[in-house]
Amino acid sequence: MIKLPTFDDVAAASERIKCQAHKTPVMTSRTVDEEFGAKVFFKCENLQRMGAFKFRGGFNSLSRFSPEQRKTGVVTFSSGNHAQAVALSAKLLGIPATILMPHDAPTAKMAATKGYGANVVTYDRYTEDREQIGRELAEKHGLTLIPPYDHPDVLCGQGTAAKELFEEVGPLDAFFVPLGGGGLLSGCALATRALSPDCQLYGVEPEAGNDGQRSFRTGSIVHIDTPKTIADGAQTQHLGNLTFPIIRRDVDDILTASDTELVDCMAFMATRMKLVVEPTGCLGFAAARNMKAGLKGKHVGVLLSGGNVDMARFASLLGAQS
Amino acid sequence: MIKLPTFDDVAAASERIKCQAHKTPVMTSRTVDEEFGAKVFFKCENLQRMGAFKFRGGFNSLSRFSPEQRKTGVVTFSSGNHAQAVALSAKLLGIPATILMPHDAPTAKMAATKGYGANVVTYDRYTEDREQIGRELAEKHGLTLIPPYDHPDVLCGQGTAAKELFEEVGPLDAFFVPLGGGGLLSGCALATRALSPDCQLYGVEPEAGNDGQRSFRTGSIVHIDTPKTIADGAQTQHLGNLTFPIIRRDVDDILTASDTELVDCMAFMATRMKLVVEPTGCLGFAAARNMKAGLKGKHVGVLLSGGNVDMARFASLLGAQS
Repeated sequence: MIKLPTFDDVAAASERIKCQAHKTPVMTSRTVDEEFGAKVFFKCENLQRMGAFKFRGGFNSLSRFSPEQRKTGVVTFSSGNHAQAVALSAKLLGIPATILMPHDAPTAKMAATKGYGANVVTYDRYTEDREQIGRELAEKHGLTLIPPYDHPDVLCGQGTAAKELFEEVGPLDAFFVPLGGGGLLSGCALATRALSPDCQLYGVEPEAGNDGQRSFRTGSIVHIDTPKTIADGAQTQHLGNLTFPIIRRDVDDILTASDTELVDCMAFMATRMKLVVEPTGCLGFAAARNMKAGLKGKHVGVLLSGGNVDMARFASLLGAQS
Repeated sequence: MIKLPTFDDVAAASERIKCQAHKTPVMTSRTVDEEFGAKVFFKCENLQRMGAFKFRGGFNSLSRFSPEQRKTGVVTFSSGNHAQAVALSAKLLGIPATILMPHDAPTAKMAATKGYGANVVTYDRYTEDREQIGRELAEKHGLTLIPPYDHPDVLCGQGTAAKELFEEVGPLDAFFVPLGGGGLLSGCALATRALSPDCQLYGVEPEAGNDGQRSFRTGSIVHIDTPKTIADGAQTQHLGNLTFPIIRRDVDDILTASDTELVDCMAFMATRMKLVVEPTGCLGFAAARNMKAGLKGKHVGVLLSGGNVDMARFASLLGAQS
């Protein structure tokens, strides 16, 4: 029986990271409120340090390292934002970092990770097993592996975003959170059940990779091939052994959004809210929009999880849409 | 002798607009602070209602209309953001609005203006005199003309942005403000001299249209042809009879930025700060960057004046830069 973390662990993470993480702003839009006939609160994790919520979990995890762990270093694998989060946290804490990144990771994310001084090792995300490579590197060099989502310190760090949201705007009727491996969603679930217990909590994943939805509905973790979607932060193959039971227990449903819907949302965010949100970051908003008829008169939370998108890619996605 | 407005008028405007205008956020960036070796505060008027500071002046002006003026309506001419500002203010106050816009105004701006219910009349900005057309329409239909910058209620409304900035972050050593016709700069100058008297205040205009710089340095208003620049909000031909004497008295210098520098700044804003800022809105940041060696250790304000840019254009500008 796995011991699951609780909201107390999220609260402790919150104390631990507050010296370095931003308390990100909550934004609203009259246009969205009119479109929905509701009050919609956007938690802007695209304005978090290094451009995504992942800094919360990364910094929380590394700040719990023992002196011995700090000395030998950290290793992780990530399609992007977790890589930057660990790299930046390691830099801030003076810990050597080795980051396994897919060879086709967005240029901006890879450059930023190297910019924080991390040692970047690449692999092929379509043919190689990053978890295995990560474990091998950890064993060989005595490094501590901090995986991108299936770790109590990681998911509790991510949950601090939801804690801040509820503390700022009060309880919500519905809350939409992007879902990849479930670190953000499970952490937010712990905060939601503690601070807004009656809130309908939805995880949202890309249509092309609905393993989370299938896992949630069947009751056991479904593994899929790396899905092809523009939501590169949610190209995960399966939920985690820690994140899944929390999601199963505390989340109301898992929804999906198509790449076309994500591009529409990116364009809306840029045009009307003047915010750069990466495709993965739009998952929650896309699902909320699909469900808006059912949200009339409600208080709705939408987590914008990140804003790290290559400008060339951003331009080409928006250009294609215009 | 023209009677110039004072900071008291800015303070009164602030009270008048606070029911409808956003107190926009002030953002900071560790990356910028490290690049500058300074503390830089960005006043985010791209997050103002309708996407630009212009709402402040528009709403302030229209809210002072007499019952008679409200009934007959308002007319204005504008390359974009002032048009939307007057259209939205008129809608909120129940005043009929006629807006003269250049036929080649950005699609997003024209659509938004019509969307607020205004009657849009187009003209050719390279051959026709919008001020004359505006005056003729006003006379013919008994409308009140609210020009885009050379009006005490307009410029005092714009100055409320600087008032908010100083009230939030305290006095500054240097402050960079975009300059077109001078409504924003002159209003901000009144607030700067009242709240941060020792601050070096800079107006920044596009290199291709440096009439303001020439006027400032020669002491009389220089008229130029409509400049060709991507900073469509600063394609003005001359400073105003009200804005110029305030600028001459209260501003320290007028600087310029090239279109290339503006695109670099747009890309930086999008990539690192996750903000959509229109080309004109980047003028202040571009000039501050050029001067950064002289800003070490200082507290610096940068006004991001707006974020209204067609996504197709935004994408093509960023795509060309990437």
